[in-house]
Amino acid sequence: MSTGTRLVIVGGSDAGISAGLRAREVDPSAEVTLIVADAYPNFSICGIPYFVSGEVGDWRNLAHRTLAELEATALQLRLDTRVTSIDVGGHRIAIRTADGATETLDYDRLVVGTGAVPVRPPIDGLSTLGPADGVHLLHTMDDTFALTGSLERSGVRSALIVGAGYIGLEMAEALTTRGLTVHQVEMLPEVLPTVDVELGALVRAELTDRGVQVHCGAAVTAVARTDARDSDGARLHVTGTGPAGEPVGWDVDVVLINVGVRPDAALLVAAGATTGPRGAVIVGEDMATGLPGVWAAGDCVVTRHRLAGVTYLPLGTTAHKQGRVAGENAVGGTARYAGSLGTQVVKVFDVVAARTGLREHEAVAAGYRPVSSTTVANDHKAYYPGAQSITIRVTGDADTGRLLGAQLIGRRGTETAKRVDILATALFHGMTVADLLTLDLSYTPPLGSPWDAVQMAAQVWVAQHAPGRPMTDADSASSAA
Amino acid sequence: MSTGTRLVIVGGSDAGISAGLRAREVDPSAEVTLIVADAYPNFSICGIPYFVSGEVGDWRNLAHRTLAELEATALQLRLDTRVTSIDVGGHRIAIRTADGATETLDYDRLVVGTGAVPVRPPIDGLSTLGPADGVHLLHTMDDTFALTGSLERSGVRSALIVGAGYIGLEMAEALTTRGLTVHQVEMLPEVLPTVDVELGALVRAELTDRGVQVHCGAAVTAVARTDARDSDGARLHVTGTGPAGEPVGWDVDVVLINVGVRPDAALLVAAGATTGPRGAVIVGEDMATGLPGVWAAGDCVVTRHRLAGVTYLPLGTTAHKQGRVAGENAVGGTARYAGSLGTQVVKVFDVVAARTGLREHEAVAAGYRPVSSTTVANDHKAYYPGAQSITIRVTGDADTGRLLGAQLIGRRGTETAKRVDILATALFHGMTVADLLTLDLSYTPPLGSPWDAVQMAAQVWVAQHAPGRPMTDADSASSAA
Repeated sequence: MSTGTRLVIVGGSDAGISAGLRAREVDPSAEVTLIVADAYPNFSICGIPYFVSGEVGDWRNLAHRTLAELEATALQLRLDTRVTSIDVGGHRIAIRTADGATETLDYDRLVVGTGAVPVRPPIDGLSTLGPADGVHLLHTMDDTFALTGSLERSGVRSALIVGAGYIGLEMAEALTTRGLTVHQVEMLPEVLPTVDVELGALVRAELTDRGVQVHCGAAVTAVARTDARDSDGARLHVTGTGPAGEPVGWDVDVVLINVGVRPDAALLVAAGATTGPRGAVIVGEDMATGLPGVWAAGDCVVTRHRLAGVTYLPLGTTAHKQGRVAGENAVGGTARYAGSLGTQVVKVFDVVAARTGLREHEAVAAGYRPVSSTTVANDHKAYYPGAQSITIRVTGDADTGRLLGAQLIGRRGTETAKRVDILATALFHGMTVADLLTLDLSYTPPLGSPWDAVQMAAQVWVAQHAPGRPMTDADSASSAA
Repeated sequence: MSTGTRLVIVGGSDAGISAGLRAREVDPSAEVTLIVADAYPNFSICGIPYFVSGEVGDWRNLAHRTLAELEATALQLRLDTRVTSIDVGGHRIAIRTADGATETLDYDRLVVGTGAVPVRPPIDGLSTLGPADGVHLLHTMDDTFALTGSLERSGVRSALIVGAGYIGLEMAEALTTRGLTVHQVEMLPEVLPTVDVELGALVRAELTDRGVQVHCGAAVTAVARTDARDSDGARLHVTGTGPAGEPVGWDVDVVLINVGVRPDAALLVAAGATTGPRGAVIVGEDMATGLPGVWAAGDCVVTRHRLAGVTYLPLGTTAHKQGRVAGENAVGGTARYAGSLGTQVVKVFDVVAARTGLREHEAVAAGYRPVSSTTVANDHKAYYPGAQSITIRVTGDADTGRLLGAQLIGRRGTETAKRVDILATALFHGMTVADLLTLDLSYTPPLGSPWDAVQMAAQVWVAQHAPGRPMTDADSASSAA
């Protein structure tokens, strides 16, 4: 019988799996048990839109690893099992299996990665309608199967998506790809509210070009079942208010709510954990919760942002990194989470939208004095066929010249996703905008410019906001065009 | 009459133009005169293969800026004019115009950007044969027109390219695109000798797939005109030795020599400048030559490599940056060139090959103890259609864990060019390989992975070469696959 540390992990998504794998890597004697609420450990939640669209034919391919691969690493998994309470002093958890049986499980160390749950907006009818009526939230594989069940019903031709954030936009593409007429309703003035409105407008243009009917500044207030004979065959009637407060309404077959997530912190809170922004559990850079022997990671905890401090910023990339830190430390390690920059990218049809760091209002809140410039630069030399423009908005600090953030909108094939990563790497090191010009970046006419597009954007920022500041070198905005 | 500094710049390519533009930017009173040896100032030499291929229809589009655009910045250009000597003490240069007239020109400050000239390998016949015979070197626009003249002759069906470096490979693609049968002869064991042979082999596979006949380990020793009746109509007979020293020969219509460049330093050397590696002029980080009032930049000078020290590394990106520093300092500035990492990328048909930093033998020469790992990672999640692999070879220091360099081979559409730039930015900041895992890089299934491909490669390096070293976080090689 093994004498290794008994590590129990609550949660089988990015944070939990990463914690388990890392713990076994650091301490191969550790006995690691994962308690997974459903039957789908280690699934790529980010991949759900591509299964719904039909681009991923078999949902099983959404697994980062199969159950067999996970078990080959000696992780023990208990599927369809929920943790109902943590007895911190007793080093034990209470669990309930799918058949309703309850038991307790002792642990030496505990990692909690319960993730997040979808926000339910205050819409009349939402509490009584559900998947059987064609009204869906989307966060788990079970949610996914419920949605595809609705979509596969005969006569389904239209959908309304509440929310135009990352998942809402990906779902607009997915449902359009399936052949549905899609209405996308966003309460804020522009889609993709995580970027500035001038950039979000470029995403909206792509949605509109692809036939999505976008309604910004509109609030959905009620969903109701309708008599199909009165509404062109549609099953649901959605009502709300338009930008000027006027009543608006849509008849659709399916309603999908995608207005974000909130931390699923109930288990840890009940055990005595402290919460911070948005109700997420406060952890240190070591992912310790403050509860003896309990670490936590992923969408249920706060994230330290390298420029903005402690915040709530649920992202899969972050969950992977935090999970690894938690897993390593739970078996005696001294790892530290290095912090997030909020780097994100989304593909919406053929548009790619990315950001890293802070936008102006976020930078102000974090104590900086941000100023921004927007540049449109080609992804490669214009003389080589296929050049496409990338819109790059750079935000820097007016006092220090420090790079604070960047937002990019390009098209597929423009390497926009990895261009934001160049800027994320520069941000990680606290570079000034001007010093971006000292980076030795690659160039060949079919793939770039002697000054890369991100450096052209830096040149424009410097010219507009720091013309008198000494630089290592610089160029005019047009010099590498 | 202006009382501004009289700045004279020798050379109208990347370094010279960048110097002129920057000087005018910093000191709008400066009188800037560029002496340009030919009629093509500010042309993109890197774009020549795409004009030869036919992808760029009008050679004028290869100009980064038109003559009118340059003159609009108040730069004065003297085209088709050569500088024959510099009188450093007298602050004056002697010039010769296209019609043979000579004159002198006074200056207050001088920037020299004479660039490089193609290396002429020791091949019998090369000194007597030229463009009229179908034998070409390729460095200037005049060279380009001579080559396209040869290619447009009737009956031209085949070409032999001596050398398989960046330009040689791009020309193999260009001539294949034009419909020619192309032989590519490389003396070294593998094409693209600037990357390790296991990676160069991937480039060779693409060449072969596209019909290029590649002959590695083969040396061309002679080129001769031939009687067309004896050689299937071809005009030139090329002979040499194969990998085992055996005689080899080819009958072709055109021979193109692309075996690299050497600095065109004669003018500065005659004026008393000191030379370093490969005969390039030694300059400081301020691009000063040591000759009073004389700065130099670009392919005619040495380059400080941030990891390897002073070397010769002629690249357009570097010429732009050095030129800007020289121009700024020539009008009283205090700019410093931040150094190169030798970041490079080339597209060969649908393969993209990139590198940054040092390969093992270069790292050894620079005093490091390099160890490397090669990883094959998908550009994005495998479940999303179109995933393609990228081969990433990471080199790090065995003692310190410091990242020393990386080489990447991917296909078009895999964002390989900007992935090398993430690594270049990390290298710039002296990151360890393990710390690459702390970078907050972007992720969406169609464009990446929760751990980006470059981070997967870092994980493999850490597992192979630094398994016991503490890390902020880490993952197994397969964990994000």
